Amino acid sequence: MQFSPLIEELIQALRCLPGVGPKSAQRMALQLLERDRAAGKHLAEVLQLSMSEVGHCASCRTLTEEKLCRVCTSGRRNDQVLCIVETPADMLALEQSGVYDGRYFVLLGHLSPLEGIGPDDLGFDELVEKLRSQPVEEVILATNPTLEGETTAQYLLELLSSLPLKVTHLAQGIPLGGELEYLDGGTLSRAFSGRQGFASVKETNG
Amino acid sequence: MQFSPLIEELIQALRCLPGVGPKSAQRMALQLLERDRAAGKHLAEVLQLSMSEVGHCASCRTLTEEKLCRVCTSGRRNDQVLCIVETPADMLALEQSGVYDGRYFVLLGHLSPLEGIGPDDLGFDELVEKLRSQPVEEVILATNPTLEGETTAQYLLELLSSLPLKVTHLAQGIPLGGELEYLDGGTLSRAFSGRQGFASVKETNG
Repeated sequence: MQFSPLIEELIQALRCLPGVGPKSAQRMALQLLERDRAAGKHLAEVLQLSMSEVGHCASCRTLTEEKLCRVCTSGRRNDQVLCIVETPADMLALEQSGVYDGRYFVLLGHLSPLEGIGPDDLGFDELVEKLRSQPVEEVILATNPTLEGETTAQYLLELLSSLPLKVTHLAQGIPLGGELEYLDGGTLSRAFSGRQGFASVKETNG
Repeated sequence: MQFSPLIEELIQALRCLPGVGPKSAQRMALQLLERDRAAGKHLAEVLQLSMSEVGHCASCRTLTEEKLCRVCTSGRRNDQVLCIVETPADMLALEQSGVYDGRYFVLLGHLSPLEGIGPDDLGFDELVEKLRSQPVEEVILATNPTLEGETTAQYLLELLSSLPLKVTHLAQGIPLGGELEYLDGGTLSRAFSGRQGFASVKETNG
C-alpha cells in the first residue's frame, strides 16, 4: 500500500532536491499537505518563476534573473582585479567575507573529462575575450582545492600565460580555528611547504 | 551581498520544508538552477496540483485526491474492526507492516489545548456517527505513546464507553531488536508491568 497517486508523485518529485531521501520527502509532502498549503503554493509559484526566469549575468556568468548581476553593475568595484571561481555559491562566500572588492568570473563548474565538462562549457573563450578588452592587471584563481579545481586552475594558468597579467591563487594552509590534530596530511604538508617567516608576514600585511 | 532577489525568494520559500535550514535551502536552490531545471519545473507543477487537489477521504479522513481512499473502497477489508490513528503516515506504517486488514479512522492530529486543537478538530462526532451506523465490533486506539497521544486515547475511551464495543490499544513494551541497556525507564516500566507468562503467550497466539 502507498499513498494516493498524486501524493506519491509529490513525494517522488521532492526527491530531486539534494539530500532528500524517501523518508524526508514523505515528511515534507505530508507536512505541506496537513499544515501549510499556503507555503506549498507559494513555493510552487516561486519555483516555477525561478526555473524559467533566472539566467546568467552577461558579464560574469553568475546566476541572476537580471541582465547583469549586482557586482557587475556596481561602480565601486576595482576593475583591475578579476577573481575566477567555480560557482555562484563560491562568489557569495567571498562577497560575504568582505575581503575582496574586485570583479568576478564564474566558471559554473570545473574541468571534468569523466562528466564530459571541457573548456567550452566553462566559458574560457569568453574569459580571454574579457581579459583582452578590459583593464585587468591581476587574475586570482580561486577554484576549490580539489583534484578537479586544481586541474582547472592549472589549465587556466597555461591559458593566461600569454597575456600580460599577474596570476595568483589563494593561500593554502591551516584554516583559522582548525586543530593540527584533526587536519589531513595534505593540508599539513601544504602548510609546511608554504611556511612564512614572521618578518615576511609583517611586510606582506604592511 | 546576497543572490539576486528572485533567487533569494526561492531560498526563503524552500525553508517551508521541514528540516531545511538556510544552508540546505541555498544548496537546493543552486542545484536546481545550475543542474536540473526540468526537475525543478516538474516539482513546481506537482506541488501546485497537490496543494489544490488533495483533500480528505470522505470516510476515514486520510489524505487523498480521490473521494474515498483505497482502503475505504477496498471490498477485502474486515468491516468489524476500526483502527484509530493520528496521521496518514501512521496509517501507511500499519499498512506496510501488513499486520492489519480492518478499516481506519484518521484523527489528523491529537488533542492539544496549547495548540488549540480540541475534539471538534479531530472529527470525534464523525467517528461516533460512523460507529453507530456501521457494523464495527472492535475499535483499536493506535495513537502515539506520547503525552498528547495517550491523552487523546483516554478521551476517546470515555467517549466510546457508552457504545457496545470492545476497545483495545496496541501493546506497549520492548521494541524488536531493542537493547534493554539503551531503553528509557518509561518503556522498561511498561514492559515489566505488562509482562506475560509463556503459556499465556501461546494461548493468545493460538
